[in-house]
Amino acid sequence: MNAEKSTRHSLRIALFGFGTVGQSVARILTELRPEGLELTQIFNRNVARKKVDWVGADVVWSEDADAVLNSGVDVVVELMGGLEPAGGWIERALKSGKSVVTANKKLIAYRGVELEKMAAEKGGHIKYGAAVAGGIPVIPGLEQGLAGDQVNRIEGILNGTCNFILSEMEQGADFNAVLAEAQKRGYAEADPTEDVGGFDARAKLAILMRLAMRVHVNPDEISPRPITAVAPIDFSYARDLGCTIRQISRAECVGGHVAASVGPSLVPLTSPIAWSRAMMNMVMLSGRFGGDVIFSGHGAGGSPTAVAVVSDLIALASGSRRVEIASERAAIGTESEVAHYIRFRVKDRPGIVADIAGALAKEKININAIVQKPGCPSDDLPFVVTVEPCKASALKRALDAIKQCDYLVEEPLDMQILSA
Amino acid sequence: MNAEKSTRHSLRIALFGFGTVGQSVARILTELRPEGLELTQIFNRNVARKKVDWVGADVVWSEDADAVLNSGVDVVVELMGGLEPAGGWIERALKSGKSVVTANKKLIAYRGVELEKMAAEKGGHIKYGAAVAGGIPVIPGLEQGLAGDQVNRIEGILNGTCNFILSEMEQGADFNAVLAEAQKRGYAEADPTEDVGGFDARAKLAILMRLAMRVHVNPDEISPRPITAVAPIDFSYARDLGCTIRQISRAECVGGHVAASVGPSLVPLTSPIAWSRAMMNMVMLSGRFGGDVIFSGHGAGGSPTAVAVVSDLIALASGSRRVEIASERAAIGTESEVAHYIRFRVKDRPGIVADIAGALAKEKININAIVQKPGCPSDDLPFVVTVEPCKASALKRALDAIKQCDYLVEEPLDMQILSA
Repeated sequence: MNAEKSTRHSLRIALFGFGTVGQSVARILTELRPEGLELTQIFNRNVARKKVDWVGADVVWSEDADAVLNSGVDVVVELMGGLEPAGGWIERALKSGKSVVTANKKLIAYRGVELEKMAAEKGGHIKYGAAVAGGIPVIPGLEQGLAGDQVNRIEGILNGTCNFILSEMEQGADFNAVLAEAQKRGYAEADPTEDVGGFDARAKLAILMRLAMRVHVNPDEISPRPITAVAPIDFSYARDLGCTIRQISRAECVGGHVAASVGPSLVPLTSPIAWSRAMMNMVMLSGRFGGDVIFSGHGAGGSPTAVAVVSDLIALASGSRRVEIASERAAIGTESEVAHYIRFRVKDRPGIVADIAGALAKEKININAIVQKPGCPSDDLPFVVTVEPCKASALKRALDAIKQCDYLVEEPLDMQILSA
Repeated sequence: MNAEKSTRHSLRIALFGFGTVGQSVARILTELRPEGLELTQIFNRNVARKKVDWVGADVVWSEDADAVLNSGVDVVVELMGGLEPAGGWIERALKSGKSVVTANKKLIAYRGVELEKMAAEKGGHIKYGAAVAGGIPVIPGLEQGLAGDQVNRIEGILNGTCNFILSEMEQGADFNAVLAEAQKRGYAEADPTEDVGGFDARAKLAILMRLAMRVHVNPDEISPRPITAVAPIDFSYARDLGCTIRQISRAECVGGHVAASVGPSLVPLTSPIAWSRAMMNMVMLSGRFGGDVIFSGHGAGGSPTAVAVVSDLIALASGSRRVEIASERAAIGTESEVAHYIRFRVKDRPGIVADIAGALAKEKININAIVQKPGCPSDDLPFVVTVEPCKASALKRALDAIKQCDYLVEEPLDMQILSA
């Protein structure tokens, strides 16, 4: 912080990135004029085509990141995303004692601990309330309101795009059609892999694990399963089982070990998580003392994300400090034992069920139900086996054995079933 | 703060009140040993009968409030409740530069602004995350995560006792039986007026209005309606209308004016608020920029409330500051225009419906539906009229006129209907 701050002048803010979120941040700062905050610079590539007249004549527009970083701003708001060049800019800002507010989940998931240390060394702060679940105050809620608990489970819907796709499919839409619709509406990128592949959600899960469970994990150790394999028939079977399907991010502390997963999962219709539709996000935190706490709202979108960014700025201007939550390095060292749904597509012939049952029995996995809808073609017959809580690794061995058989039309789809 | 704090010694904590919440606070401090916090004194009346051996031998037990306040503690944790003597103790603590953490919703609703000013003058802090919705971090979420938005509506379930009673009645239980059960379980006081009368909820609503809508209202201006008038037949009619019944606290900013109400209301089954069962609390905040944000969890009980208290202590120890949210004095100056459910009990005779319809028409209130279940005795016939959104004052005038009629067996029950 420079000298002006201590005499209670306004914090001078440089906005890096004038896309949807950046514009919403500028809009809120301009319309609400929160005390103690002054937007002074906006950086964007090809800035000329971004210029708008409503942000005030004093704001300097620039496409020279160095010049903005070397200027007298107090806070850099980074909304470019990605590891680089955003990471380098943030590092330079922190090393010169500036504070940083960012919505960059990837950077915080991979380098958050290091950047927080860097900030503390120079007396600055890095805040990232917008990095997880956009407009829902999960991060401030965790840091300021649940620090006194011991959170041992996180379950949630952390990716709005997947939730939009799956809740539309629940109503009968086709995956490709709804993905195209999401892209048209700006909910999904041209390359949707980050979202539908689960990479976006796992970065957010890693951040929540650090703040809630105080474990510092490498996001790469969480293997996400894509939602692309979910077919309309799965929603039909899920409904028969009293469930729907959502992309679920889940982490658990079991006897000092840490389990984490991201992927499409069956959610009982009686669970609050099933209520989440369209672009909504939801996070359920289970604490040893406080029980379940649920946060829900708009996880993404320009305005909700901007609310989180501006709230972080207001907190900085108020002299509010992050509650230091110490975390320990941890490996994803264990597996949750949860129930599973496995959907097969087979060329029908006698003995298939016996074969599958045998492979599961060999791994000591108990079958809970076998469900088959009538009226499907016998050369591409879908049916579902649900199994009682078991380790994913044991199930994988059983499925690997089954995959050798010639009756499979495609790879079995394996999804966790959340408990009600 | 005394000199020790600045040299980063632990904050010395005095606990005022060793009831359910106080014991849970001591339990968490003893088991989790959060860095920077040291429980040094426990005050309670007749302290001898409260003593436990698990809090550590160094802790001083006392029934002399003055001695504890005059000692070198840094933070007073006030868990006695009520305006006095708690208010006087808190005042003395703040005036001597100590900080205060309290769960006292009544005191904060009536005197929060004054006490915050008092704290600021001496460099101390007053934090009250536990005052609303116990274990759910609504207050830190609002202060730290939604300060960048403009919240224009609050709807929620702020009293666990009423929610327990009404969600049990939804399942067929009788009011008096379930109230007795709540008292047995310690959910309700011997005199349940604060809870069932809506006084507890209105204090919490006033606190939320200040932090979320930045209006400083006198809680006495919110006239709560008790849940005692709700009968089993109302749940039956509510179900026919696609709704259930909950005690709802609601506030709204309409064109610069403030409306607020507390009372039993019809909640559409499709609304997230209808999900709240048993002792759960739920708060839905609607922001101009961020849309709806929902918080849900255990609103009361020793451990959840203690989590909020300990989280406030951890925030104090981290040097985190409250985000100053300036509020303006405001009168409850307007009414929300919402739909209403009115249940009559009448001695049946021709012309009643015409009579009621006429009284409503005179106040320009549109009837939406008239519902009457078959099979009820004609000398105590319940039936329901729902009306389109209208002002409560106009409806009251219409009902006052209807009350003059000799066919009423009891006063009509008027409940708001939340929109879906």
